[in-house]
Amino acid sequence: MKIVVAYSGGLDTSVLLLWLKEKYNAEIIAYCSDCGQGEELDGLEAKALSTGASKCYIDDQKEEFARDFIFPMFQANALYEGRYFLGTSIARPCITKGMIDVAIKEGADAIAHGATGKGNDQVRFELSAAALAPDIKVIAPWRDAEFRKQFPGRAEMIAYAEAHNIPVKASMKKPYSMDRNLLHISFEAGALEDVWHDATGEDDKDMYVLSVSPEDAPDAPQYLQCLFEKGNVIGLQTEGLAELIAELGDFEVQGEKDGYTLLTPYGVMRVLNALGGKHGIGRIDIVENRFVGMKSRGIYETPGGAILMAAHRDLETLVMDRELQLTRDTLIPKYAQLIYNGFWFAPEREAIQALVTESQKTVSGEVRVKLYKGNVMQAGRRSPHSMYDEHVATMEGGQEEAYNQDDATGFIALNALRLKANARQK
Amino acid sequence: MKIVVAYSGGLDTSVLLLWLKEKYNAEIIAYCSDCGQGEELDGLEAKALSTGASKCYIDDQKEEFARDFIFPMFQANALYEGRYFLGTSIARPCITKGMIDVAIKEGADAIAHGATGKGNDQVRFELSAAALAPDIKVIAPWRDAEFRKQFPGRAEMIAYAEAHNIPVKASMKKPYSMDRNLLHISFEAGALEDVWHDATGEDDKDMYVLSVSPEDAPDAPQYLQCLFEKGNVIGLQTEGLAELIAELGDFEVQGEKDGYTLLTPYGVMRVLNALGGKHGIGRIDIVENRFVGMKSRGIYETPGGAILMAAHRDLETLVMDRELQLTRDTLIPKYAQLIYNGFWFAPEREAIQALVTESQKTVSGEVRVKLYKGNVMQAGRRSPHSMYDEHVATMEGGQEEAYNQDDATGFIALNALRLKANARQK
Amino acid sequence: MKIVVAYSGGLDTSVLLLWLKEKYNAEIIAYCSDCGQGEELDGLEAKALSTGASKCYIDDQKEEFARDFIFPMFQANALYEGRYFLGTSIARPCITKGMIDVAIKEGADAIAHGATGKGNDQVRFELSAAALAPDIKVIAPWRDAEFRKQFPGRAEMIAYAEAHNIPVKASMKKPYSMDRNLLHISFEAGALEDVWHDATGEDDKDMYVLSVSPEDAPDAPQYLQCLFEKGNVIGLQTEGLAELIAELGDFEVQGEKDGYTLLTPYGVMRVLNALGGKHGIGRIDIVENRFVGMKSRGIYETPGGAILMAAHRDLETLVMDRELQLTRDTLIPKYAQLIYNGFWFAPEREAIQALVTESQKTVSGEVRVKLYKGNVMQAGRRSPHSMYDEHVATMEGGQEEAYNQDDATGFIALNALRLKANARQK
Amino acid sequence: MKIVVAYSGGLDTSVLLLWLKEKYNAEIIAYCSDCGQGEELDGLEAKALSTGASKCYIDDQKEEFARDFIFPMFQANALYEGRYFLGTSIARPCITKGMIDVAIKEGADAIAHGATGKGNDQVRFELSAAALAPDIKVIAPWRDAEFRKQFPGRAEMIAYAEAHNIPVKASMKKPYSMDRNLLHISFEAGALEDVWHDATGEDDKDMYVLSVSPEDAPDAPQYLQCLFEKGNVIGLQTEGLAELIAELGDFEVQGEKDGYTLLTPYGVMRVLNALGGKHGIGRIDIVENRFVGMKSRGIYETPGGAILMAAHRDLETLVMDRELQLTRDTLIPKYAQLIYNGFWFAPEREAIQALVTESQKTVSGEVRVKLYKGNVMQAGRRSPHSMYDEHVATMEGGQEEAYNQDDATGFIALNALRLKANARQK
Repeated sequence: MKIVVAYSGGLDTSVLLLWLKEKYNAEIIAYCSDCGQGEELDGLEAKALSTGASKCYIDDQKEEFARDFIFPMFQANALYEGRYFLGTSIARPCITKGMIDVAIKEGADAIAHGATGKGNDQVRFELSAAALAPDIKVIAPWRDAEFRKQFPGRAEMIAYAEAHNIPVKASMKKPYSMDRNLLHISFEAGALEDVWHDATGEDDKDMYVLSVSPEDAPDAPQYLQCLFEKGNVIGLQTEGLAELIAELGDFEVQGEKDGYTLLTPYGVMRVLNALGGKHGIGRIDIVENRFVGMKSRGIYETPGGAILMAAHRDLETLVMDRELQLTRDTLIPKYAQLIYNGFWFAPEREAIQALVTESQKTVSGEVRVKLYKGNVMQAGRRSPHSMYDEHVATMEGGQEEAYNQDDATGFIALNALRLKANARQK
Repeated sequence: MKIVVAYSGGLDTSVLLLWLKEKYNAEIIAYCSDCGQGEELDGLEAKALSTGASKCYIDDQKEEFARDFIFPMFQANALYEGRYFLGTSIARPCITKGMIDVAIKEGADAIAHGATGKGNDQVRFELSAAALAPDIKVIAPWRDAEFRKQFPGRAEMIAYAEAHNIPVKASMKKPYSMDRNLLHISFEAGALEDVWHDATGEDDKDMYVLSVSPEDAPDAPQYLQCLFEKGNVIGLQTEGLAELIAELGDFEVQGEKDGYTLLTPYGVMRVLNALGGKHGIGRIDIVENRFVGMKSRGIYETPGGAILMAAHRDLETLVMDRELQLTRDTLIPKYAQLIYNGFWFAPEREAIQALVTESQKTVSGEVRVKLYKGNVMQAGRRSPHSMYDEHVATMEGGQEEAYNQDDATGFIALNALRLKANARQK
Repeated sequence: MKIVVAYSGGLDTSVLLLWLKEKYNAEIIAYCSDCGQGEELDGLEAKALSTGASKCYIDDQKEEFARDFIFPMFQANALYEGRYFLGTSIARPCITKGMIDVAIKEGADAIAHGATGKGNDQVRFELSAAALAPDIKVIAPWRDAEFRKQFPGRAEMIAYAEAHNIPVKASMKKPYSMDRNLLHISFEAGALEDVWHDATGEDDKDMYVLSVSPEDAPDAPQYLQCLFEKGNVIGLQTEGLAELIAELGDFEVQGEKDGYTLLTPYGVMRVLNALGGKHGIGRIDIVENRFVGMKSRGIYETPGGAILMAAHRDLETLVMDRELQLTRDTLIPKYAQLIYNGFWFAPEREAIQALVTESQKTVSGEVRVKLYKGNVMQAGRRSPHSMYDEHVATMEGGQEEAYNQDDATGFIALNALRLKANARQK
Repeated sequence: MKIVVAYSGGLDTSVLLLWLKEKYNAEIIAYCSDCGQGEELDGLEAKALSTGASKCYIDDQKEEFARDFIFPMFQANALYEGRYFLGTSIARPCITKGMIDVAIKEGADAIAHGATGKGNDQVRFELSAAALAPDIKVIAPWRDAEFRKQFPGRAEMIAYAEAHNIPVKASMKKPYSMDRNLLHISFEAGALEDVWHDATGEDDKDMYVLSVSPEDAPDAPQYLQCLFEKGNVIGLQTEGLAELIAELGDFEVQGEKDGYTLLTPYGVMRVLNALGGKHGIGRIDIVENRFVGMKSRGIYETPGGAILMAAHRDLETLVMDRELQLTRDTLIPKYAQLIYNGFWFAPEREAIQALVTESQKTVSGEVRVKLYKGNVMQAGRRSPHSMYDEHVATMEGGQEEAYNQDDATGFIALNALRLKANARQK
């Protein structure tokens, strides 16, 4: 038997790797996706091999994650339950796709993940895997009573690791359950389980990773301009951008156009995260509904995503037809739930995406926003596809050619006809 | 003929009043709704009578507007095109209802309004009137070619007013088209017609009425607690509340409960507006789609509404069922469009409202927010109806009675079944 | 321990009853709902007691089923996947409610049902129970490996029954899996598992229970008139109705009105079933999607339901507002799925029902249909709430007061405005 | 000025043609679409020229109409208000496209149509034109007061025609307003304006054109098999098909495959119409809601469409994912309304179509139906894309690999979790 195991080098997945190897007498392939979690991956391969893997894949999915997952989702303005940017949810199908690709290449029989039996991630992993490779088995040790019995707590895992010479950093148990990738970082559990607990104050200040609080953000606002093409940001413009890119250091500029620095989707997300983080943008604190049936409370930092959505929405009303937008918007609560629940690769998500893609054909142009202490303020938008016509919209008279005010009389009369019939019916 | 005319005492409606009287040889009843526009209404009756009206109604709709219009709409979390709080839209059916009530009482044949032929307000007035009193005529002088010919500009109106001894304040033409009520103030036209124009800066600073800019807001955050009952705020709690209420001065406290000051809907809106305005909350700058077919650009200040919606949403996910919320949310883009387009009294809006009302039965509890420079930060929520169960949600083990992790295996397996069938079909 | 067991007196539930008694050393209360399945229930109590029950409830739910379940569902015109009348689905929450009422009254710890682990009924029973009494346990022996092992086939059940002196009729195994109630009868399994199998022919003629085939229906059509009040049929009128009612024999006439015989919901369903069955109406043959993830094929007879829906739909367009209908119709695919999946008592179903109820306020009037060999042909409708106005609708000229043709010019012009802007954008 | 005029050779459009020529002193291009209305078009050109046109286009749109309009609409299973097959509605954008193509080619300034100011067709023509060529004017003489004054009735039109030597057949005024094309024929007005009038009887027998009544249909049923590819019928199989095709005579067979005769979309519609008409299929009598605000009553014959939809729906549940179908179905009431209201070329219709197209990728296979006296009875379906798995669906035991019954326990438990929380909340 050959198993591809999701592996991060931490205590949990290290124990899991070896435990699976022993239980199934299996060959283990370690798989680690780099989807922007910002962790040190040097040395990971050696560690995996020394823990018992026969091979270790370190899969740079950062660009793919931004291009094929984050961007299409933001074209839809997806927010789960009106507020959550789906940062964790959207990463799972990406990672699973990476694992499945490896599993197929390696001829593996199964993939295994370290998600617990209470969360959404197990569902997202397994539904993605079912859709991509229905005949590859998925193993979830945390739902295996034997595993849970063997490891009732962290102490037993450390003991097991030491007994098997698995190198484990003497890390403290973290006070929160965290998940980080290119789009966001999330915090759950610990003190946050009290939903009345205020997480905006000094006590929790050290929890946050990607952003300062609005209170700690600079006193001076910063303007940012986004260049969109078909619903995706392809270029950015702001003071100090070149320096910032140099500082971030891990991606290339794609060119210049009309004063904009052209970037790949990954580059865009990196810059937006840096800017949003600096200005205290994109923190949310919500109670949300897990697919497995309970409510949970989470804190999220999504600095770049918050800017991206604000800019995208703003351009849309300039260039998109009103009824097209309504049609699309009506589908978004469901679309967001699909992603949250793990149905990224489901046919209904793909069908809605086809509609979303169709809606983005004209969403090209520029948006200017002002970043200031948690705010993304609209500060102008323009586009060659603009459907805004100053001459028609003006409250002043004239322009009778473009818009005849008398038309409104008939328009209202016929719209009123059914309301009058309703009124008379009563 | 007897006509009830929407009257504010300004140049436009004064001219309109007299013009209608002359054109139709009609008895004119002036009607002025006070729905929180914050204008001086003393002396209005005398002015109306001297302008030619036989009677003048000054209709205090402030409480009704908050209770029967704003609050039900906020129970639905309605936002037009994802961003606009519908401040103007929701006032129109309220005012029309007031006018129609007067028209029926007075046995009038018609009502008349001063909305132009290009905007949404004419539609909202006339559709509301059609639904409430299908046999009362609506007169819209701005869509009467004769009226437009007679008054091609402001100068002709002033001349007409002077010629007829209508007292007109020597006011400057305002640089923007504005509309204010208890929920918001809007700005359109003028410099704003350039959609690339940045309205957040110094040049437009004097335009804003209800709020300071985030930059000018206090450096110290302010905590606010809202007490909800069935989706409506009934009480507030914040430092200095008693003083603030005394300062606002035009409404009564309804009592105290668990540290909350109980208020009527009007009182709630007054306090939230004051707090939001102080902290730079609720400004938006958008391009929007008018029902009459064109796009327009507007700036809005909705300080209290922005707080109300943030708090309401936050409570909902704590106490509302997931699928109920999805069902409701899916209808909101349409619901918001209905209100925007003037269909408040239409049967489809009423049907959706019935669903919304059903959804709010459990939305009672407390929400704490932190107001700071444009931000409404979530800082805790709690409720006797809470569906959040710390013991179930925890990532820790144990609690097998409330939630059996093994159940997830079957849950995922059956959810995956159709995805596997889809995958095999390909 | 005390268990309420769904009991029909047949082999399966008899075995189940005793097996549960032994396995749990429990007191068993037998529960049999009469929801119109047309089976002989005399002697059932004695049989239950002799099989091991301490008590037996025979619960006449026929009127409740029609009034509180069938009728509200037909107000919504619910069809699952566009075709299935939900006959089995809607009975399950009704029966579960009956069982739960007994369980609460008796202070029982659990309820048990005989549905298999592959079908929808287990889900419907258990979700209904969860919503009605979250603390009462549900036992599903067919999902108990021990039970399945003990009874791998029918032979073992017969042997068990004989060994325990359970009286079992020497019935043949039926060639189909069937479910019958007041609304319908369903057939699954057996020869029907071949989805290409034609079930309309001679071979399967004996399978059908509630209706003749269209081919075998009378050559003479029959007119039927339905009197509706708020979306529900309250009276019927057709030749030979008095004789038919006398023949059916198990319900009372409620009075007469304008030539209509007034009936309770149960009486309405009985008559419609008889008429529909006589005229070959309401047979369908479909592949459908089970909630548990697979597709299955079923044949259904719903003679009365097919007439009821056709008549209801026909009245609706006469008396219901266009946009209200659209709003309602948009929700029906989801509403039908909720019922199919077992979520009758879920808050989202109740919320949609609130909207549906609101939509039915004006759905009163008369519908005439012509029943003929499988067809329900529309043959006229009228209502005091009619919104149809002959004078407005006529293609002839005149009537300019009710409808001004010139209004259409403005109406079209403003509707076209955004389309022109779209066209110019391309 | 150059005007393209919709022309049929009848009295109305002949008068219109000449009247427009005189009023606008314009060059007139006559345009007649052949979209299957079954009228004699020989000699039409000569007649148009003699009436005053400088040119006459006779545009054979039959294949285009079937392929680009009817078929995509039936992929969506579109029914307006649950019952109307949209036969007239879907032809209008097709015809308008033909006219606009001619207008562009000819450099015309305007197009003109003969639809009245009360119906839907004017809207459909003009919205289609607005979307296709926003700068070409549309002239609607029936909304021109001058035209209506000149022609208050049919007598004045006949007199005008005779005075101008326009050849007019001495036809009787028809008792109904009719519209016919490849998809259907409609009847409105006349005796039908009484919505209680029964149109299924002897009195109206002569009205019907495309079908016999169910009563007059053959006593012997006829089997028909449809071969689908991506949601469209591409082949048919039934007894006597070759003879029928020879008799219809105006289209070519495209080949043979697996016993099916392959046909173009037009050929498919022709054969289905003939079969449906023979068996009394596809008649409906409805009250419907016009976009211009009033209700009207219509009788429709759609023999082929009724078969096509029944067959398509039946295949879909065999091969389409459950949730994909739900997502699509939820959009159909709106989609149908868009077509009815004239928004075929609107971006929101195109976006929904993109979703529909995505949904049809797997809708290939065979459907067998039995045609009998108004009924389209399902008699089997099969497909290489079938998602039905006999081994999974069976109610029998075994097959534990494909479906583990124990999984249902967890599945139900987690679905029940939120319902229990709801119950406890109460």
